[in-house]
Amino acid sequence: MSTPIYLDYAAATPLDERVFVVMQPYFSEKFYNPSAAYAAARDVRRDLDEARHRLATSIGGKRDEIVLTAGATESVNLAFRGILEPDNHIVIGATEHAAVRGVAAEYQVTYAKSDAKGIISPESVAAVLTDDTKLVSIAAADSELGVVQPLAKIAALLGEVRRDRAKRGINTPLYFHSDASQAAGAIDLHVARLGIDLLTLNAAKCYGPKQVGLLWVASHVTLKPLIPGGGQERGLRSGTENVAGTIGFARALQCAIKDRHSESNRVRRLRDQLQDTLVTALPDLVVNGSQKKRLPGHLNVSLDGLDAERVVFRLDNEGVQVATGAACAANKGTRSNVLTAIGLSDSMADGSLRFSLGRQTTDEDIERAGNLIVDAIRHEATL
Amino acid sequence: MSTPIYLDYAAATPLDERVFVVMQPYFSEKFYNPSAAYAAARDVRRDLDEARHRLATSIGGKRDEIVLTAGATESVNLAFRGILEPDNHIVIGATEHAAVRGVAAEYQVTYAKSDAKGIISPESVAAVLTDDTKLVSIAAADSELGVVQPLAKIAALLGEVRRDRAKRGINTPLYFHSDASQAAGAIDLHVARLGIDLLTLNAAKCYGPKQVGLLWVASHVTLKPLIPGGGQERGLRSGTENVAGTIGFARALQCAIKDRHSESNRVRRLRDQLQDTLVTALPDLVVNGSQKKRLPGHLNVSLDGLDAERVVFRLDNEGVQVATGAACAANKGTRSNVLTAIGLSDSMADGSLRFSLGRQTTDEDIERAGNLIVDAIRHEATL
Repeated sequence: MSTPIYLDYAAATPLDERVFVVMQPYFSEKFYNPSAAYAAARDVRRDLDEARHRLATSIGGKRDEIVLTAGATESVNLAFRGILEPDNHIVIGATEHAAVRGVAAEYQVTYAKSDAKGIISPESVAAVLTDDTKLVSIAAADSELGVVQPLAKIAALLGEVRRDRAKRGINTPLYFHSDASQAAGAIDLHVARLGIDLLTLNAAKCYGPKQVGLLWVASHVTLKPLIPGGGQERGLRSGTENVAGTIGFARALQCAIKDRHSESNRVRRLRDQLQDTLVTALPDLVVNGSQKKRLPGHLNVSLDGLDAERVVFRLDNEGVQVATGAACAANKGTRSNVLTAIGLSDSMADGSLRFSLGRQTTDEDIERAGNLIVDAIRHEATL
Repeated sequence: MSTPIYLDYAAATPLDERVFVVMQPYFSEKFYNPSAAYAAARDVRRDLDEARHRLATSIGGKRDEIVLTAGATESVNLAFRGILEPDNHIVIGATEHAAVRGVAAEYQVTYAKSDAKGIISPESVAAVLTDDTKLVSIAAADSELGVVQPLAKIAALLGEVRRDRAKRGINTPLYFHSDASQAAGAIDLHVARLGIDLLTLNAAKCYGPKQVGLLWVASHVTLKPLIPGGGQERGLRSGTENVAGTIGFARALQCAIKDRHSESNRVRRLRDQLQDTLVTALPDLVVNGSQKKRLPGHLNVSLDGLDAERVVFRLDNEGVQVATGAACAANKGTRSNVLTAIGLSDSMADGSLRFSLGRQTTDEDIERAGNLIVDAIRHEATL
């Protein structure tokens, strides 16, 4: 059988060859502990600082605003626990990933509703804000539909709320965090333009190494430490630094940003072609989520009554790798909170498939996969 | 100049070529998210589980007792926070690493004293135990002197204390944790023989990848989660798994255990040779810590009034990389808690150097380094 066609870039991305190349020396001759005193270790420290600087400037931030973490989940945990006390009120989007919902459950959390297209509007956030709300967290784009959220508009709303609080003598601060793991390389990540205070990014979602992430923390925000110890990452997150991982992350993010326009256009064209093939051949198929505000590589569809899991296994046998939704949720057999949030019935949610395209997806892949997907859905739908 | 002689293996170890080889496929063709449903991802899940199994059996544990973490500091944090409530009393050794002291400071902590040789005796632990003590944490060996602690004897004491508590109707559990990061590959790590409930290991200290570690948790111990989210690592520590890192860690630990006897003997002989050279040439030099209960690669010496930092820089210029102590502490200019704990005066502590030998240290290295170290100390001592 030929190489499988991978259409699950939202779950994992392969390490870019350009990234691997810059990481490799830090596994071998540059293995030094960056806190050691000799020149070779100081060189490694300098390389690490330089990578941190490049990560920061890639998103319009400053080097000292970057906290390196072991992936997105830890970054989100640091943001929430760094800011909040146990009784604090917070608002998160109804379509947030488990990484956000998990830590949010430790606080007084209210979900901002999604509309039927998967969009969390400023109005929906405003409806659940109280004078006690200390943190709002909305992903830049969710991982299942790939719907891109109006962060700048929500930020503008939160700015008004802050001014109104100040006017009324209410001192509770209001922070805005966004998990942009899924959106890196597809949207403008400039933190000032997004209007946020804290940003989570994940190297593993943009062709960088696994278990490498960051939290960007605007300089006016003071966090409590998540992991005390040797005092690395300004004491917020101790542990000998992952030099190879950080160097690789910086390269991966730079590549993603540099290629953003051309690659988004290319992937969007292929995704639209796949969508056309599917909806033309299967008139009852519904495309989930906003088709206007959507990551270029995402396509999420439902067919009422379809057993999507069976389609995934059938397609796998045919050499096409797709998902029913977020990998960590799919693995546990729980129904997607995202599909429920946009109002899908259980039988529509259970009949949904996520296709996510990426850097190695070709025209030939999409042509072949399109036909195989249509056949698989037809076969399972008529069983 | 020729390749520098690296004598700081306690700070960082280079990635073993045998480890890199098994990791590499998981960066490229096996990059899949192990929670995805298709066969290729399930294969990755199987490889991950198998590596977890090998990590467990390497220390005499079971697969389900292993929690993979991003290094030792996180592992220690998970152990402490997973067991303890904020007001709990705990006991840690006076020579513990910052990774333990950092999280310990969040609780009611008492330090078990070290003797002048760096040994934390069962008596010293017994002296500070109360009926409220919930956790005792003693490193298998400290990172500065490399003194190996009598864990099995301390475990026997704690067993008596538990039985005594039970007899008196006291229900407070008493757990025994050990950070064995520094000792992996040099001592017997079998958890039942050590008599512990929780064990921390770090891949980066045994020629494995950086930011990869584990917490072994005996099946009778129930932990609270450290990082909630997607539910990986049985919900204790969420985040897409570091497959390459885990595969590499398993290989690194297996190599370390397999080569333990031969490599310990080889390194010990070289270390003893270096020690002989130094104490013969420099009669006022004091060897710190137990010379009997010591990791084979460690040598820590002091000369009263010496500016050890200057020696480090001088030796670096001569092509010998050594340390004054733990890298994270040295970097902050704070005096070593280990040297203070064994009763060294400030001028002795500031005049101390740590040499740590490892897998790539050769006879020629030690011969050349010995002379260079003697010259450097002589030069600085007479300034």
